[in-house]
Amino acid sequence: MKKLINGVETLLTESLDGFCAAHADIVALGPDHKFVRRNRLKPGKVALISGGGSGHEPLHAGFVGHGMLDAACPGQVFTAPTPDQMLAAAEAVDQGAGILYIVKNYEGDVMNFEMASEMGAEMGQGDVMTVLTNDDVAVETSDFSTGRRGVAGTLVVEKTVGAAAETGADLAACKALGDRVNARTRSMGVALTSCTVPAAGRPTFDIGADEMEMGVGIHGEAGRRRVALMPASQIADEMVGAILEDFGSVAGDCLLLVNGFGATPSMELYLMYREARTRLEAKGLTVARSLVGNYVTSLDMAGCSITVTLLDQEIAGHWDAPVHTAALRWGL
Amino acid sequence: MKKLINGVETLLTESLDGFCAAHADIVALGPDHKFVRRNRLKPGKVALISGGGSGHEPLHAGFVGHGMLDAACPGQVFTAPTPDQMLAAAEAVDQGAGILYIVKNYEGDVMNFEMASEMGAEMGQGDVMTVLTNDDVAVETSDFSTGRRGVAGTLVVEKTVGAAAETGADLAACKALGDRVNARTRSMGVALTSCTVPAAGRPTFDIGADEMEMGVGIHGEAGRRRVALMPASQIADEMVGAILEDFGSVAGDCLLLVNGFGATPSMELYLMYREARTRLEAKGLTVARSLVGNYVTSLDMAGCSITVTLLDQEIAGHWDAPVHTAALRWGL
Repeated sequence: MKKLINGVETLLTESLDGFCAAHADIVALGPDHKFVRRNRLKPGKVALISGGGSGHEPLHAGFVGHGMLDAACPGQVFTAPTPDQMLAAAEAVDQGAGILYIVKNYEGDVMNFEMASEMGAEMGQGDVMTVLTNDDVAVETSDFSTGRRGVAGTLVVEKTVGAAAETGADLAACKALGDRVNARTRSMGVALTSCTVPAAGRPTFDIGADEMEMGVGIHGEAGRRRVALMPASQIADEMVGAILEDFGSVAGDCLLLVNGFGATPSMELYLMYREARTRLEAKGLTVARSLVGNYVTSLDMAGCSITVTLLDQEIAGHWDAPVHTAALRWGL
Repeated sequence: MKKLINGVETLLTESLDGFCAAHADIVALGPDHKFVRRNRLKPGKVALISGGGSGHEPLHAGFVGHGMLDAACPGQVFTAPTPDQMLAAAEAVDQGAGILYIVKNYEGDVMNFEMASEMGAEMGQGDVMTVLTNDDVAVETSDFSTGRRGVAGTLVVEKTVGAAAETGADLAACKALGDRVNARTRSMGVALTSCTVPAAGRPTFDIGADEMEMGVGIHGEAGRRRVALMPASQIADEMVGAILEDFGSVAGDCLLLVNGFGATPSMELYLMYREARTRLEAKGLTVARSLVGNYVTSLDMAGCSITVTLLDQEIAGHWDAPVHTAALRWGL
């Protein structure tokens, strides 16, 4: 295993220390590395909190800041954060308007965020609602999820709900918007190589030199099928095809996110963007917003995912709204 | 070779098509894919043009836009662009205040940019000056360069000179600032794995499962020495040590850029940032500005570089100035 680390036990805390030092103008670290929080809270604003296993950076801590999350709770690599992390984060960023948890649909995450909600209620914390993201069309259930997995579409939910909360939307409105954006979002991934979890010390899955995992999950979980390497055009056919089939009929404007899993060069991501865009436009969609880069990663996995969100005026407006986080920044 | 491409011949143009489509609000593609240019030129502004072999994205096209470059000329992967690319770019973005080429110190790049300068003069193009970047302290000469190599510090030169040009600095002032920033900038890299150039189809260099290349170049060129894997703390000792030794005495504020080569997860880059920052501060420097991410990459190489720029008020001000490019954006 080749990694720039001192040891698997200290990787997460040392990385978080570095992250919060590099972005001290935006974020601060909670006690015991339990959460990363926004420096300047906005009184009366719904508190948006997300979290999940580490290894998907910049998700979620990279999306903490003005116009997006108020706090993120990082678990160990590919391991759900514990409820005490969410409770501590909620206590730190609650501004009296309630708390919205944004949770990717994995059993550990769902369970621990639910537990945090219940414990928070008992402790007298503010109202809590949850948006569950499950945008991955690859598989209907998986090793770690009942129902579809939440993947890169989570970014779109966090950005748009973050914008709504920033401009005064109440808890119920934030929850409704998050559910609506999630319902209008579909993703599909492909892996060329496996990631290597530091604590495991070896690749999560074996894959041949001429194989790809079509529909892979962001932890290296199995997708739809193991296939032979294909040209980008055919890969895009299958990924965009799966997304469009799942949508049924589509029309109008969409957001296209081509997300790198961590080890795929920018040149390839932009090439995949071109392939995906061409196919979406051939089906009558207009790609009106775009994002290309490493946003919801799987450590050092090579490959990418394609995410499509069907826009309307409200969602596009929230996407365009100012954001100032470590990983997404515009308008400020 | 596992890559998301259709073929090695079309990789560059297809990727550029995708890049310019995704960022059509900022950039446009020149004829025959010769250059990427800023959409909205500023009358009377010095034209900043850079370029080099592809495979280092987002350098340079990702830095085209308000407050940074006016155009970038992408060569084939790890191959210098040809003079006709620079001539075409200069013709497209020249605003009557002269042209500044920002060139990384590699023989092919230096030769072709020089040739473009001479041909441009013959054709009656405006005044041309060149800033040569050579921030890599690892080796004094290399396979592809006479003198030190230009690496991630090039970003700092492009950002600061871009800010100066945007606010009206004349050609001589831009040239002087670029030289000054380059002279105050040092970098050093380390590779854990080799990159694979698509046209070659196999790794550029062989490296053992327990080895690193200390001082590696951004094309996978040899560095100072092949060493056994070390903890991040020892890697940082050697890299920061080499930078500080080269500076001689240091004090005051600095910018710290921890740059991923393409396949290294964000967690590891932030951990390396922590290690580097600790060491710089122990030597009396204040890390006043920070940047962490994949900015000057080597395709799919795992590893990172550390860049330190000694700041003064002028350089810090230009760093902080608004920028709106595909890969760097703040204040706008």
